[in-house]
Amino acid sequence: MLTIFGSVAIDTIRTPARIIKNMLGGAATYAAISASFFQRPGLIAVVGHDFPKKYQHTLDKFVDSKGIVHADGRTFRYDGSYDQTLSLRKTNKTELNVLKDFKPIVPEEYRKSEFVYLANNDPAQNTKIIKEFDRVKFSMCDTIDFWISTKRNDVIKMMGVVDSVVINDEEARLLTKTHNLIKAAKKIMEWGTRLVIIKKGEHGSLLFYDDVVFPSPAFSLENIVDPTGAGDSFAGGMIGYLANKNSTKMPVIKEAVAYGNVMGSFAVEKYGIAGLVNLSKPRIQSRFNHYKKIVHF
Amino acid sequence: MLTIFGSVAIDTIRTPARIIKNMLGGAATYAAISASFFQRPGLIAVVGHDFPKKYQHTLDKFVDSKGIVHADGRTFRYDGSYDQTLSLRKTNKTELNVLKDFKPIVPEEYRKSEFVYLANNDPAQNTKIIKEFDRVKFSMCDTIDFWISTKRNDVIKMMGVVDSVVINDEEARLLTKTHNLIKAAKKIMEWGTRLVIIKKGEHGSLLFYDDVVFPSPAFSLENIVDPTGAGDSFAGGMIGYLANKNSTKMPVIKEAVAYGNVMGSFAVEKYGIAGLVNLSKPRIQSRFNHYKKIVHF
Repeated sequence: MLTIFGSVAIDTIRTPARIIKNMLGGAATYAAISASFFQRPGLIAVVGHDFPKKYQHTLDKFVDSKGIVHADGRTFRYDGSYDQTLSLRKTNKTELNVLKDFKPIVPEEYRKSEFVYLANNDPAQNTKIIKEFDRVKFSMCDTIDFWISTKRNDVIKMMGVVDSVVINDEEARLLTKTHNLIKAAKKIMEWGTRLVIIKKGEHGSLLFYDDVVFPSPAFSLENIVDPTGAGDSFAGGMIGYLANKNSTKMPVIKEAVAYGNVMGSFAVEKYGIAGLVNLSKPRIQSRFNHYKKIVHF
Repeated sequence: MLTIFGSVAIDTIRTPARIIKNMLGGAATYAAISASFFQRPGLIAVVGHDFPKKYQHTLDKFVDSKGIVHADGRTFRYDGSYDQTLSLRKTNKTELNVLKDFKPIVPEEYRKSEFVYLANNDPAQNTKIIKEFDRVKFSMCDTIDFWISTKRNDVIKMMGVVDSVVINDEEARLLTKTHNLIKAAKKIMEWGTRLVIIKKGEHGSLLFYDDVVFPSPAFSLENIVDPTGAGDSFAGGMIGYLANKNSTKMPVIKEAVAYGNVMGSFAVEKYGIAGLVNLSKPRIQSRFNHYKKIVHF
């Protein structure tokens, strides 16, 4: 079983081409929908009284919603703008709302999950919640600059209690105070995690394990419309594939990273979650096969 | 046969860790030495009366020096500084010297070359010199921001007379006025070349051919000391391998790009050409095999 814990949000995304207000968003939304194509995950999250019914229906379609708490208050909201190149994002507004005082509870049924993904939540909360799972075979966490800047020690502690860390290149540099990504990954592994995946956006990712570095290019796209959720879709695809295979062997992990790249590429082709929700397993498999063919030599 | 036309220089390179003055450098030097591990190239270049005998001996060891003209004047000199991350280079001084009025001549013996690499020379000169080869099977050119800024039309014309263009990501963007690298490559291909290789430094490269994009990650290194000549070593390794195989079939071109990545990785591990001149074929093969193993999944 796979459980994902993280934020469900109502997003306003501004790109040079379009502004889309009040979309269904959030790290856990992207990760969970992406994962669902490999294994339907349980989702632990909180939404407010203003959370649209149609968004709840969308979630119900892809995830087990038992872990979604409907709290009194407004749903977590995010508003961000991309620059002309779609590579830089500026936060216009973050309203934590119901996320602020959320005390996540792991439903009884989820406790036996073997695969757990902790999206970019409060690191102390992640460290606490992972202990509530009885039979974890593979756990993974992400983090963002906000937590690195405000709770660096808790971030480091969290990285000691999970099997793997998936993190952006710039955030890995910020966290480890190291420019070279191999050195950064080694530092993160010294804190206790066995495996580090550094996401480099359009440049793909680097997977670190023992002394091995497995570089994986991104699936190249001519038309990117909205990078929101690309990293979360990557992480979701990766852990979803692992859960589906019920394996953490190295060759499977490498395949999982490749599926992560593929899912990230689908996410950025449309606005918001539209690139994911209309996907089918055959389309994913077809792009994976194509990706494998072009990367191999 | 393989011929390389380009600059031989005396370089001063300043990194945060070390300053090395008056090293043997130049785009053609790196490309030719890198290529020599696959096929000994003929080198067309000019040096001055101040060119040290030991540097001439170094070149003689790796290349056919018949095409090297000893002119009256000082050798082309370059002085550059890297920033703390070794990812940005600032030019402190460029002295063209003998390069300024050099009229390259293709030695009779080189005219039958089937593989020709035109390093970042004056694009009009490149366009002229390629016509002096009788049996070209595969030609490749590079260019730099200086030519794009001063002779953009000549650069575009040059890209219509070669089989392939190898170019940095930032220079491809500058040249095509396009941010997306797939769109940039397509634009370059519209100018007449069949194949485009965009170099992305630590992020590897993208190879474009018809509608195919072949992304290739860089060989990850923990200790980079001097990025000078990485791109030239990549191009030299690539065309050297093609010349050795005497093939321009797609699977061979993909392998050539992988060898290019490997040669670039050796170049940056030591200062100046030291990373290349002490190499052996077995070490190259061993790193290639390792690279192939980690990239495949």
